[in-house]
Amino acid sequence: MNILSIIEKKALGKELSYEELEYAFNGFYKEDIEDYQMSSLLMAIVINGMTLEETINLTDIFIKSGKVYDLSSIGEVIVDKHSTGGIGDTTTLVVGPIVASCGVKMAKISGKGLGITGGTIDKLESIPKFNVYLTKRQFLENLKTVGFVDSSQTLDLVPLDKKVYNLRNNSGTTSSIPLIVSSIMSKKIASGADIILIDIKVGNGALVKTKKDANLMSEWMKEIGKRYNKKVVTIISDMNKPLSNCIGNRLEVEEAMRVLKGEKCELFVTSLEIASILISLAKNITKEEATKEVIEAIDSKKAYKKFLEFVRAQNGEISKMKIKANVKYIRSEEDGILVGINAKKIGELALKLGAGKTNDREKIDYSAGIKLLKNVGDKINKNDILATLYTNKTIKLSNDDISCFEIE
Amino acid sequence: MNILSIIEKKALGKELSYEELEYAFNGFYKEDIEDYQMSSLLMAIVINGMTLEETINLTDIFIKSGKVYDLSSIGEVIVDKHSTGGIGDTTTLVVGPIVASCGVKMAKISGKGLGITGGTIDKLESIPKFNVYLTKRQFLENLKTVGFVDSSQTLDLVPLDKKVYNLRNNSGTTSSIPLIVSSIMSKKIASGADIILIDIKVGNGALVKTKKDANLMSEWMKEIGKRYNKKVVTIISDMNKPLSNCIGNRLEVEEAMRVLKGEKCELFVTSLEIASILISLAKNITKEEATKEVIEAIDSKKAYKKFLEFVRAQNGEISKMKIKANVKYIRSEEDGILVGINAKKIGELALKLGAGKTNDREKIDYSAGIKLLKNVGDKINKNDILATLYTNKTIKLSNDDISCFEIE
Repeated sequence: MNILSIIEKKALGKELSYEELEYAFNGFYKEDIEDYQMSSLLMAIVINGMTLEETINLTDIFIKSGKVYDLSSIGEVIVDKHSTGGIGDTTTLVVGPIVASCGVKMAKISGKGLGITGGTIDKLESIPKFNVYLTKRQFLENLKTVGFVDSSQTLDLVPLDKKVYNLRNNSGTTSSIPLIVSSIMSKKIASGADIILIDIKVGNGALVKTKKDANLMSEWMKEIGKRYNKKVVTIISDMNKPLSNCIGNRLEVEEAMRVLKGEKCELFVTSLEIASILISLAKNITKEEATKEVIEAIDSKKAYKKFLEFVRAQNGEISKMKIKANVKYIRSEEDGILVGINAKKIGELALKLGAGKTNDREKIDYSAGIKLLKNVGDKINKNDILATLYTNKTIKLSNDDISCFEIE
Repeated sequence: MNILSIIEKKALGKELSYEELEYAFNGFYKEDIEDYQMSSLLMAIVINGMTLEETINLTDIFIKSGKVYDLSSIGEVIVDKHSTGGIGDTTTLVVGPIVASCGVKMAKISGKGLGITGGTIDKLESIPKFNVYLTKRQFLENLKTVGFVDSSQTLDLVPLDKKVYNLRNNSGTTSSIPLIVSSIMSKKIASGADIILIDIKVGNGALVKTKKDANLMSEWMKEIGKRYNKKVVTIISDMNKPLSNCIGNRLEVEEAMRVLKGEKCELFVTSLEIASILISLAKNITKEEATKEVIEAIDSKKAYKKFLEFVRAQNGEISKMKIKANVKYIRSEEDGILVGINAKKIGELALKLGAGKTNDREKIDYSAGIKLLKNVGDKINKNDILATLYTNKTIKLSNDDISCFEIE
């Protein structure tokens, strides 16, 4: 076996065997195979695709590169959720406390944001002193006592994916359903939960651009779940406009807290859906019964208290979290109806304000971000404030920034 | 402009502008763009192709990366020939002396072999003391006095191609018509000849596998020639079986000498064709008239004497060239008719004997090689010797080696 014939085989669109994928990817992990060989193979996969069988095999190779968490010592069904990433997607911080307060344990390993897509770890780190680097012992302990735990991906969990993911980001080879599926599913399976909900975001602000791709991803993820005796459920949700009214780390934590205290915005709707599915599967009850439990958990403040318990358990000091930034406004330049809020452009604007970073040299400003003040469908008058911007940078708004808001 | 969006554009099969190609390839040359980024772009080009316009632009970017030779001081029409590479392709060593002895000057820059494909520079270096590293002054001097000169590609001629070619060889991105065309044509145009003949080899032993690809290459090469006021002619020749009866550096030099002395084998036929075309174009006479001149040059030994003059002018000592190797035989295991000699397998066998190398750490054994003793169409009896093998290695012949010869 040699790497050049494997690359050339995929360039011709042929199916690679388990052994060939293993030779290439493990060789890359052990640095026997060069970055420029792996990136050319990755590009051949991006363009020519992979079959379901290849995707299942690659997932398995990813999983075997590191440790697999065994959560069976908890003695209960463990749930997990994952979003394929979007703009203003704070559902984890709402769903985790809800399900835990309803007696369902959720063990989550999260990632950092990249580019315009936020990451839960950044949101948690925006809470003063919050510890996202738990040892395995702390992780299990918090899972047992609090019922919701969220820790950063450690090096021992699917290390091969980390290396491949990094190369993909730097070689223009991110847009590939089979590669996205293997990356997500390997991490989810290695994290050890029994029931895994994947929220597939579709739209201009998401990694997945079309409904068709989302359906394929959904089907393959479920199939992979079966091979490892995991229950995988998926929901496909729109990411053409931001999921919540707040974009930016501390702004999103604050919004999650408002939802947990009873605010009924769009973030509430998606979180309710996800929490209900997870609870119904874990408790083996109907979704309607689960939904009732969720609403009760919010109304009784049980869920909100669970959030505070979760933050404390990971050393966070939520009362000390403050937004420190200058405020700017985006005002409408015309009368009309707000017909769209472009998620991608909102994400780019948030990045410009300092809410995210595009490489490891930059630093995130946790206070930076955007608060959307109007919803799609609202009647708008000229000079109405559409959004409040929080930033510590000196920025000049361009036409492109204002065009986030489509008014007709 | 940024490299990731250029890579992603080509991954979607879109046409890149001159500026985008320049940004990517010049950036790679200056090491602003990483190897793994260039190889992923190259793979996208291999799979999605390039338009004629992109290929013309890339050729231009290649040419501008180095010096362009000006041969106008010679004051005559200069010809050049190039073969896209094959097994046992020794035409340059026959054609050069023929055309020079007929008064047409040929200036050639040649390359080394790679893998199973031989290179003219290796063949010349197999002649004791032969100097393939001429200065520009020596190059022009020999062209003027001898009429045929052949030197190794120097660093100042299309250096970007050298860098890209090396990466392509190591990243599985060689099979691409646009990339092959840009690589060959940039070097030919920068070498300064007025009339360029390209011998496109097609078949299992060649870089180009199908007649269709060869026709497209031919068309594009002529089009690129026009842009630089060069006369480009192409011939398309079969490389499913080796071009000559000898494969291996010194064996091939010896065979070229036999052809120049009058032996009428297949190598003679191809060389006659190429020499006739070049002479007819350079002298503006008919091909029939040119063919007469070629035969006269061989019969009178003028061409052979020109070969000796050419070798001496570059310090070679042809009388000291000896084949020093152990001899082995491949015998037929059955009675029948020899219906095919597989060029690719013959090339691989020659490589195994030491006649070529697959990387820079290996050393070529100039004496190693294969002499074919039977031609396609010959009646074969069991135990007949099909080929003589020359090697200094201890090798064991496999079934695959014997299957070079297809007997029915």
